[in-house]
Amino acid sequence: MKVLITGAAGMIGRKLTERLAHDPMLNGRPIARLDLHDIVAAQAPEIAGAEVNVIVGDLAADGEAERLIKPKPDVVFHLAGVVSAEAEADVDKGYRVNLDGTRLLFEAIRAAGHAPRVVFSSSIAVFGAPFPDIIPDDFHATPRTCYGTQKLIGEALLADFSRRGFFDGIGLRLPTICVRPGKPNKAASSFFSAIIREPLAGRETVLPVPRSSLHTHASPRSAVGFLIHAAGIDGETVGPRRNLTMPGIACTVGEQIEALARVAGSEVVKLIREEEDEAVWAIVQNWPTRFTSQRARELGFVAETSFDDIVRAHIEDELSGNARPA
Amino acid sequence: MKVLITGAAGMIGRKLTERLAHDPMLNGRPIARLDLHDIVAAQAPEIAGAEVNVIVGDLAADGEAERLIKPKPDVVFHLAGVVSAEAEADVDKGYRVNLDGTRLLFEAIRAAGHAPRVVFSSSIAVFGAPFPDIIPDDFHATPRTCYGTQKLIGEALLADFSRRGFFDGIGLRLPTICVRPGKPNKAASSFFSAIIREPLAGRETVLPVPRSSLHTHASPRSAVGFLIHAAGIDGETVGPRRNLTMPGIACTVGEQIEALARVAGSEVVKLIREEEDEAVWAIVQNWPTRFTSQRARELGFVAETSFDDIVRAHIEDELSGNARPA
Ligand SMILES: NC(=O)c1ccc[n+]([C@@H]2O[C@H](COP(=O)([O-])OP(=O)(O)OC[C@H]3O[C@@H](n4cnc5c(N)ncnc54)[C@H](O)[C@@H]3O)[C@@H](O)[C@H]2O)c1
Ligand SMILES: NC(=O)c1ccc[n+]([C@@H]2O[C@H](COP(=O)([O-])OP(=O)(O)OC[C@H]3O[C@@H](n4cnc5c(N)ncnc54)[C@H](O)[C@@H]3O)[C@@H](O)[C@H]2O)c1
Repeated sequence: MKVLITGAAGMIGRKLTERLAHDPMLNGRPIARLDLHDIVAAQAPEIAGAEVNVIVGDLAADGEAERLIKPKPDVVFHLAGVVSAEAEADVDKGYRVNLDGTRLLFEAIRAAGHAPRVVFSSSIAVFGAPFPDIIPDDFHATPRTCYGTQKLIGEALLADFSRRGFFDGIGLRLPTICVRPGKPNKAASSFFSAIIREPLAGRETVLPVPRSSLHTHASPRSAVGFLIHAAGIDGETVGPRRNLTMPGIACTVGEQIEALARVAGSEVVKLIREEEDEAVWAIVQNWPTRFTSQRARELGFVAETSFDDIVRAHIEDELSGNARPA
Repeated sequence: MKVLITGAAGMIGRKLTERLAHDPMLNGRPIARLDLHDIVAAQAPEIAGAEVNVIVGDLAADGEAERLIKPKPDVVFHLAGVVSAEAEADVDKGYRVNLDGTRLLFEAIRAAGHAPRVVFSSSIAVFGAPFPDIIPDDFHATPRTCYGTQKLIGEALLADFSRRGFFDGIGLRLPTICVRPGKPNKAASSFFSAIIREPLAGRETVLPVPRSSLHTHASPRSAVGFLIHAAGIDGETVGPRRNLTMPGIACTVGEQIEALARVAGSEVVKLIREEEDEAVWAIVQNWPTRFTSQRARELGFVAETSFDDIVRAHIEDELSGNARPA
C-alpha cells in the first residue's frame, strides 16, 4: 500500500501521519511507502518495513504534481491548502494553491491512469448564509468566501473526475476541527479551540462572541478517523454524489464551556474572559451552524457524541491526560 | 454603452445581436460600441451611431481575454462555450474552453478594475439526478456531465468575483432553448426542438423518447429576454446568490405535440414518427424535469406561459409567420 499525503506538515496531516505510523495499515494492507509532501518539510516517522519520504515543494508549481504521482500511490490524501483567512486576504494565492494546486494534482492522477482512491479535505465553508435551521445534505453550496469557493470547485472536479473513472474520489466537508493544538492564530474561528486549549494549559483567553452562538465541531482524532474511513469506503455505495458533509457535535459556545467545566473543573473556566468583538461576531454569524450529515452517518463516518468527549480527546492526545490546574 | 458578447456567432449570440441591432438600447442607454467575439466570425449588423466589431479568436488563448476587455465594456454577455455532448467527448477541450476560457475572461475583467455587469449563460445541467419532483432554488448542484461541472465552476467563480466587487455578475441557468433553429444536431436534446421545427418545415422527424417524458423549455426569444433583463437588474436586490434558475414551460413531450397540433394543425403532427431510442432515453431520464424558479420569477424574469406560445414564437421568428403545410 503506497500512500501520498499533501499538506503533510499541516495540523491534520501531522495527526494522520502519526496515526499511520502508529498503526501502519490502510484498508487492511500494510503501508509499504508513505510520501509526505508539503511546502515546508514534514516530520518523517519511522515505519518498520516502509519507505517514508519527505518531499518539499509547491503543489501548484510546474511538474510538482506529476512528480508526486509518479510512484502511483494507491491512496492520495489531499490536505494541502491555504486556509480561509489567507485565501481571503491574498486572492491570487488562494486560487493558485486551492484551485490550481488541486486541479493539477487531479490532472496528474488522471494522466497516470491508475485510478487511485483520492480523499479530499473540503470544508463546510462551501455553504453560505442564509441557512435553514439544520442544513440538509442536499442544501446548495453558495460559499461566501474565496476559500469556500475554491473548496467547492475542488469538490466539483473531484466528482466529475470520479464519474469519469479518472480516480475514485471522496470529498469530506470537515466541520471546524476542535481542539486545534498549538498557538492561537488569526483565523476568526481560532477562539473555538482557544477557549478550551488555553485554560487547560493554565492561560487566560478571550471569548469574542455571545455564549449562544452555535457551531459544529469534531476533534482532530475524528478528522483522522474520517480520512481513514474514506480511504476504504466503497465508491459504488457512495454513488455519484462524492462530497459528504461530515458529522460533528453541534453546540453553543456556552455548552462548550460547560463541558470544559465538567471535564476539567470550574476553576479552569475562570480563565475565559468574555469580551465581545463585533468584527469576529459579524463573521461567525454568517457561518453554518449545524447539519444533518445523514449520508455520512449512514456511510459509517463517526464523530464524538458530546463536546465533553472533544475536551477529553484533547487532554489525552495533547496533554498526556493531564489538564494543568488553573 | 459598450457591450461585449462572447460566443456571438452561436445560436443565442446571434439572436441577442439581432435584438440589440433592432433596438440598440441597453439599460436605457444607446449602444455606442458592440464587440462580437467568437472563434468563428459573427455576422456584424448595422447599428446607427454605433461601432460594431467582429473579433475572431480563441477565448482560452493567451492574451485573448485581455484584448477583449481592453475597451472596458459596460456589459459583458459571456455565451461562448463548448456544448454538452462535445464537452463529454473531449474532456480537455471542454475544460479548456468552459473552465479556463471563463476564468481567463473573469480574471481579465478583474484586472481591468472597472467592475462591469457580467451576464453568464449557465445551464440547468448543473443539476444531477436523483431529483425531487420540483427542483427548488436551493437544491444542490451535483452535475453528472463535464459540461454541467464546468458551468457550476463558472457560477462559483462568478459569485465569488461579484462578492469581492471585481465585477457585478449574474448567472442564468438556462433551461433547454426550444425551438432551436437550424439543422438537427447530435445532442441528445436535439429532438425536443426537432419535433416542432422539422414538421413545421414539412419534414419528417423521429421522437426517440416516451410521450410522458417531462422537460422544461424556453424560446430563443425568452433566452434573449433573460439576458437583457439580467443586464439591467440591480445586483444589491439579487444579493449574494448570483446564479438563478430561469423560468420556462415544463411539459411532457406529448403536451409539446398537442401544442403543435393546436397551433399548426393535426396534419403537421403526422410527420413525427415515434421510435424509442434506448440510448437517448437513458440520458434524458437523468435530466432535471422542472423547477420552481421562484427567485428568478420574483426578480422579473419572464418566460412563455404555454408551449403553444413557444411554437408561435418559432413560427413568427423563423418562418415569417407561416408554417409550411404538411
Ligand atoms: N482544521 C480545520 O478546522 C479544517 C476544517 C475544514 C477543512 N480543513 C482543510 O483540511 C486541510 C488540512 O487542514 P489543516 O488544519 O491541517 O491546515 P494547515 O494549514 O495546518 O495545513 C495545510 C498545509 O498545506 C500546506 N500548503 C499550503 N500551500 C501549499 C503548497 N502550495 N504546496 C504544498 N503544500 C502547501 C501548508 O504548508 C500546511 O502545512 C486543509 O485543506 C484545510 O482547508 C481544515
Ligand atoms: N441552447 C441551449 O439550450 C442552452 C441551454 C443552457 C445553456 N446554454 C449556454 O448558452 C450559451 C450559448 O448557447 P448556444 O445555444 O448559442 O450555443 P452555440 O454552440 O450555438 O454557441 C456557442 C458559441 O461559442 C463559440 N465558442 C466555442 N469555443 C470557443 C472559444 N474557444 N473561443 C471563442 N468562442 C468559442 C462557438 O463557436 C459558438 O458560436 C452556451 O454557453 C451554452 O452552454 C445554452
